[in-house]
Amino acid sequence: VTSTSSFHAIVPAGGAGTRLWPLSRTTRPKFLLDLDGSGRTMIQQTVDRLSPLASSIHVVTGQAHAEQVAAQVPEVDSVFREPSPRDSMPAIGLAAAVIHQRDPNATIGSFAADQVIPEYEPFAEAVTEAIEVAQGGQVVTIGISPTGPSSAFGYIDGADRLEQFPTARRVAHFVEKPDEATAASYLAAGTFSWNAGMFISRAGVLLDALAAFQPELHEGLTRIAASWDTPERDEVLEKLWPSLTKIAIDHAIAEPLSVQGGVAVVAGRFRWSDVGDFAALADLVGKGGDDAVRVEADRSFVVNNSEKLVSIVGIDDAVVVVTDDAILVTTRAAAQKVRKAPSAWADRGRFDVV
Amino acid sequence: VTSTSSFHAIVPAGGAGTRLWPLSRTTRPKFLLDLDGSGRTMIQQTVDRLSPLASSIHVVTGQAHAEQVAAQVPEVDSVFREPSPRDSMPAIGLAAAVIHQRDPNATIGSFAADQVIPEYEPFAEAVTEAIEVAQGGQVVTIGISPTGPSSAFGYIDGADRLEQFPTARRVAHFVEKPDEATAASYLAAGTFSWNAGMFISRAGVLLDALAAFQPELHEGLTRIAASWDTPERDEVLEKLWPSLTKIAIDHAIAEPLSVQGGVAVVAGRFRWSDVGDFAALADLVGKGGDDAVRVEADRSFVVNNSEKLVSIVGIDDAVVVVTDDAILVTTRAAAQKVRKAPSAWADRGRFDVV
Repeated sequence: VTSTSSFHAIVPAGGAGTRLWPLSRTTRPKFLLDLDGSGRTMIQQTVDRLSPLASSIHVVTGQAHAEQVAAQVPEVDSVFREPSPRDSMPAIGLAAAVIHQRDPNATIGSFAADQVIPEYEPFAEAVTEAIEVAQGGQVVTIGISPTGPSSAFGYIDGADRLEQFPTARRVAHFVEKPDEATAASYLAAGTFSWNAGMFISRAGVLLDALAAFQPELHEGLTRIAASWDTPERDEVLEKLWPSLTKIAIDHAIAEPLSVQGGVAVVAGRFRWSDVGDFAALADLVGKGGDDAVRVEADRSFVVNNSEKLVSIVGIDDAVVVVTDDAILVTTRAAAQKVRKAPSAWADRGRFDVV
Repeated sequence: VTSTSSFHAIVPAGGAGTRLWPLSRTTRPKFLLDLDGSGRTMIQQTVDRLSPLASSIHVVTGQAHAEQVAAQVPEVDSVFREPSPRDSMPAIGLAAAVIHQRDPNATIGSFAADQVIPEYEPFAEAVTEAIEVAQGGQVVTIGISPTGPSSAFGYIDGADRLEQFPTARRVAHFVEKPDEATAASYLAAGTFSWNAGMFISRAGVLLDALAAFQPELHEGLTRIAASWDTPERDEVLEKLWPSLTKIAIDHAIAEPLSVQGGVAVVAGRFRWSDVGDFAALADLVGKGGDDAVRVEADRSFVVNNSEKLVSIVGIDDAVVVVTDDAILVTTRAAAQKVRKAPSAWADRGRFDVV
């Protein structure tokens, strides 16, 4: 794929995944876990599938996780350490600015560190098309073909086709997570896809858009990037980072740029999961707990990392997760509320388990 | 209470309590457990409340549990060891025959080892009245005043009053566990009480009834009793016990005798629980798990005998029981089905946990 010769991948690795507690912890967030039993953690899988496509890979992560990231994916070209979480735009923007400084013709793509894509080939096809579309000056996203009317994801509404490419369309607009009825109408319409937060563009295009929509943030990132390959890096970073606007790339660039017709979407025709909660994990890996006894609980999902025997009686969609220090009992239906459990433990001062 | 001077208590201690698994085990059945956190096990509580009323107390239990029984209630006068379980009539009948042989005027009462009665005084009143009624030649049961339309217990239908006693009535008939609608009609009728399996009578009356209704069983028990205080006890017991009819006292005597007008019931006006399942245990001891996190699970019941933290999200009537080797997850509504869990482990050959 000749066009990938100057393609640089940015992997923002943030978010604790508190809906997967007690598997995920503050000190061991979702992207550092092997959730699908593949033997590779989520960030390792992310890097694995980007390596054949990108000429360099850059992870952006929090200070607390940088060492574990470096240990898990030693092959990446750099690990950017965020002094504090400022959401995805400063993270991606910093890496983009540094890459652009080193290679003004670079094309970049951002891919979250905590998503599962089991099949490589259709992913590679989508990225390759996105890189080609991006040469024309668009910011390009990969829209995941929906497998159902999910209310767990934001949606991308595709408009007219860009005929010279296999699947690309102009983006009409981005929409937030819908309710179930609205999600069903999106599915019926056929033009909507799931927003997986993948954005591909020329580095200069992204930075120009940032300058237009978030000039102060652009200014701060430009100053940090200018110091990056100098002895002043740490000093400038510590001074400016806390003042950067905390904002997601969707709100900072994708949404306002789409209104101007500057965003395209290519079709991501692959299985994809953000493993957002235990219901999603169960969909991904099956019901688990081969050694559990289930009585009128056939669909129940079990993760048991202990020697204790698990028995479930009469709760069909139960979710039971056992770690060395915690037991979570919930249902697939209540899976989105799991984040309230570590929050309650934190309220009690039990920071050792959150 | 002068009439208790020759009153002898028999405590059949059998039954595994598989609906309380994994708290109860084959090797550590319900009656050996301190389920209400009182500091006394159920058999200890049973002996505690009989001690002031009875001139001797005799436990009948399985070979496997005799040592633990002797260790828990060293103050009892004897522990009869059953070579194998033959249900309650042989157990009670053997003790009755031995007691009758030693004291032909004895009055006896049988009281299961696995029931909770929090208040002593009303229990003592009922037993005292039952002993007095029994002097007239009746087999007397104590009927528990229902607190609701339970379908978990057999019922006793009381007929005409025996006017010379405070609460006694002739028993019209015994009925098996009803469905919920029938239980509601019993409660509305006002003459029904719960059958707690307490039977008080003169020993000779019980043995005469046994001779009439179960002559072979009576013959076998008489021969074992004749050998009891001789060197031949073990030999005769081992030889005859396996041939004894396996039958409950309710079917062997109480039901057929009630048809002849030979059974009376006195009112048991006390709180009572057979702690039949985790829903009953929750009713008895409250929801437990003071250290658990509950999110939309306010009524959930927790027993946690481990260091692991328990969190329940979105299952209001959840039951979570954690021991050193097992975790049970169910609901109060499904509590009666819990016995299927140890059964399933046994099917898998895991006899170490049943």
